Amino acid sequence: MGKNEQFKQYFLSHRIVTNELIGKISTEHVDYQPTPTSMPARTLAHHMLKSFYQFTSAAAQQQPKELFENEEEISLNELAEVYTKESEKLIKSMSDEDFSATIDLTEMIGTKLPAEQVLNLAMDHEIHHKGNLFVYVREMGHTNLPMFVKQG
Amino acid sequence: MGKNEQFKQYFLSHRIVTNELIGKISTEHVDYQPTPTSMPARTLAHHMLKSFYQFTSAAAQQQPKELFENEEEISLNELAEVYTKESEKLIKSMSDEDFSATIDLTEMIGTKLPAEQVLNLAMDHEIHHKGNLFVYVREMGHTNLPMFVKQG
Repeated sequence: MGKNEQFKQYFLSHRIVTNELIGKISTEHVDYQPTPTSMPARTLAHHMLKSFYQFTSAAAQQQPKELFENEEEISLNELAEVYTKESEKLIKSMSDEDFSATIDLTEMIGTKLPAEQVLNLAMDHEIHHKGNLFVYVREMGHTNLPMFVKQG
Repeated sequence: MGKNEQFKQYFLSHRIVTNELIGKISTEHVDYQPTPTSMPARTLAHHMLKSFYQFTSAAAQQQPKELFENEEEISLNELAEVYTKESEKLIKSMSDEDFSATIDLTEMIGTKLPAEQVLNLAMDHEIHHKGNLFVYVREMGHTNLPMFVKQG
């Protein structure tokens, strides 16, 4: 199995859960904040989807595309679907050698890293915020929640 | 750098943040639950520390020690300190070859995995629950919170 297929499976084992949680955020709850300094639910979900796509574009040495004309008007479920598909495409486009390329993230996080580490950082960022989202969704009244990762 | 040193640095880049959040849980807040079905704060913190130690013991093919006689009576900060040190010791004890050994986790999660994957799963579990803990600690009134990971 190539590194791209392996990483894609790892990504989806968490993203499937992210998207399941996003599916539980009803229209009335998109502005839900646990505290006044917390990110509102929609902002948090959008931040997760967009950051992962941007990190992955950087790792794949491709310019991130503008995926929507007016993101604010698109439903969370549609954002989740499109960002997930486009992130998958970027991962699939990478060869084993691409995983070792040095990526300049000076502007994003002030350092240069091998592409593989950029992808792992993107995953940690996703898992961290998905951990936030679990608490949000439980506070919206959902008690039947998935495991934090879907094992193949 | 050996795989053990590399993994230890990765572990600490997150565990330092976990322990900083644990340090913010005051005695009055140990039973804090965001919702009636959520783990109370102390239970969540203890679960993170103990699970990581148990996963790492399994990966290092060592029997986990009983680190305290009566864990319920020990402060969260002391639990955090001791569990972190003992987890570090286990990681340091591993050779590069140990990272490829097959570990039987049939009883814990119903599958066998290479030690390296067991350790990565332990990290994902830590990052997930640390993501929960960030929301708890903000709800306890703390607004000056660290980044989700301390970059070397």
